[in-house]
Amino acid sequence: MALDLPEDVTLVEMLPRDGFQRLDEFVPTDEKVDIIDRLSSTGVDEIEITSFTHPDAVPTLRDADEVAARIDRNPDTTYRALVPNAVGMERALDADVDKVNALITVSESYSRKNQNMTVDDILEEVDAIVDLADGTDVTVEAGIGTSFYCPYEGRIDPAATERVVERAVEAGVDEVTLATTMGLANPVQVTDLFSTIMERWPDTTYGLHLHDTNGMSLANTLAAMQAGVDRFDSSVCGLGGGVVLPEGMAGVGNTPTEDLVQMLTAMGIETSADPDRVEAVAHHVSEALGLGATSHVLMGGTVERVLETVEEAND
Amino acid sequence: MALDLPEDVTLVEMLPRDGFQRLDEFVPTDEKVDIIDRLSSTGVDEIEITSFTHPDAVPTLRDADEVAARIDRNPDTTYRALVPNAVGMERALDADVDKVNALITVSESYSRKNQNMTVDDILEEVDAIVDLADGTDVTVEAGIGTSFYCPYEGRIDPAATERVVERAVEAGVDEVTLATTMGLANPVQVTDLFSTIMERWPDTTYGLHLHDTNGMSLANTLAAMQAGVDRFDSSVCGLGGGVVLPEGMAGVGNTPTEDLVQMLTAMGIETSADPDRVEAVAHHVSEALGLGATSHVLMGGTVERVLETVEEAND
Repeated sequence: MALDLPEDVTLVEMLPRDGFQRLDEFVPTDEKVDIIDRLSSTGVDEIEITSFTHPDAVPTLRDADEVAARIDRNPDTTYRALVPNAVGMERALDADVDKVNALITVSESYSRKNQNMTVDDILEEVDAIVDLADGTDVTVEAGIGTSFYCPYEGRIDPAATERVVERAVEAGVDEVTLATTMGLANPVQVTDLFSTIMERWPDTTYGLHLHDTNGMSLANTLAAMQAGVDRFDSSVCGLGGGVVLPEGMAGVGNTPTEDLVQMLTAMGIETSADPDRVEAVAHHVSEALGLGATSHVLMGGTVERVLETVEEAND
Repeated sequence: MALDLPEDVTLVEMLPRDGFQRLDEFVPTDEKVDIIDRLSSTGVDEIEITSFTHPDAVPTLRDADEVAARIDRNPDTTYRALVPNAVGMERALDADVDKVNALITVSESYSRKNQNMTVDDILEEVDAIVDLADGTDVTVEAGIGTSFYCPYEGRIDPAATERVVERAVEAGVDEVTLATTMGLANPVQVTDLFSTIMERWPDTTYGLHLHDTNGMSLANTLAAMQAGVDRFDSSVCGLGGGVVLPEGMAGVGNTPTEDLVQMLTAMGIETSADPDRVEAVAHHVSEALGLGATSHVLMGGTVERVLETVEEAND
């Protein structure tokens, strides 16, 4: 047998939003701009550059407008931003992004605690965001948080996630990304949920945003590809991830882009990202932000690095 | 679509051989025996308890005979040992093990450097091991090292691995386990190679021994199950793994048993191992050997631990 896999996949780099947001320290705007420009030079398809959230809510991204204004726009890169509501969407349009990620959460408890809104309130904001995008070149993706697990409610009923996907599709979004906010989903849950929603709403484009809390993110990627998903979010150095996790999990965040690109490339699946350039950016970011070796590629877990080590040992 | 997966899998715990062997310090025999007895109480199907190698070659396992004599034999556990040659097999028979793992390597360079033998020499030893097993209740598995990559030769031609599998099957072994000695294989390589050999020699039982150098071991497990493999080696705390790896990879070894059991159980695949007991043994071993948090389960990446953390934070 052969695994049924896509020929190529689209990769979305989340570091500048999901990663910088999570750090305790504010990364200076100059450094953010420099890293985003390095990321676009890897060839990665899409970069989530920031979040147009109220600066008091996410102070680490309070320079969103300035970041968007100062980066070098690579014509091959789709620059997108997270928008939590219509106010954020207006700022995103002013900032001339190509795409927005409208965040929705399935869990009522999570929505209330983290955004102080009900799920219905959020869905109304999505309607407004789609209306604002109408007549512009800006595409709208719905990022569906807590698609599988919620820190307050535990396992999320797939039917609840389906209802939110249905509402997002009805609102007219161009793409839907399911997010494993807690990083606890497994390959069977991933394929089951995607199979159901892709059958029900076949005209929407789907993506997967993975956290690696349980170490299954690459297995989940493999499973999702077999269900027909060909868009994946990831973050250089794995920076980002869950807000509420055990202390020892602080270093475990998103799927590291360098590990994901290594796997896909080794499997013969095309990504626009150059593995060597991604590896170089990962080393740069790890050093610049003092992260340590937070991915297998950073630790030297590639064919080239292992063979180099052997050669050095034999010298 | 649904993933085509086995209903249950057999798990082989490698810690007492692959793990203890890799440590710089000799783990006292009392502690080895205690850990093996804790492992058998998890319900895991099979345990590789030691290696009957010359004590000068692997001094960390110089107490092989004593370990085998002193452990409590759980009637539901298959106790096996690694045997590198006919001399080791004689010791294994004297030690009353249920099964042996006859190690073969595909790479000529690796065989010469690590065992000071040619691949043909090793295959002759396997013939002798099978002859010695004949008429006893002891089953023989061939563990095929460097099935995918070799530290000295790089990528191994699948045809070379197939030739060694063919010779092992002809020798009359009961089972064949492919080993990703360098931990660099990817899911496509895993399914391709297993599909080929399982089609050519359908009457043999197959297993997979994974190292996690590139972080793909759970993805490789998922891929192998889809090719029909239902036997997996793993090691509590991930202890074990490649002998020649970059310095930063020292903590990256085998697939951690606790992460593997978590994934399989979450996916609804039966293993005999109780996830809670496996988690408890992993914490014990991590503390007893001072390993730190070397797996996602040890870091707290389970549904239960994450929800506990949230509850505590909300208290």
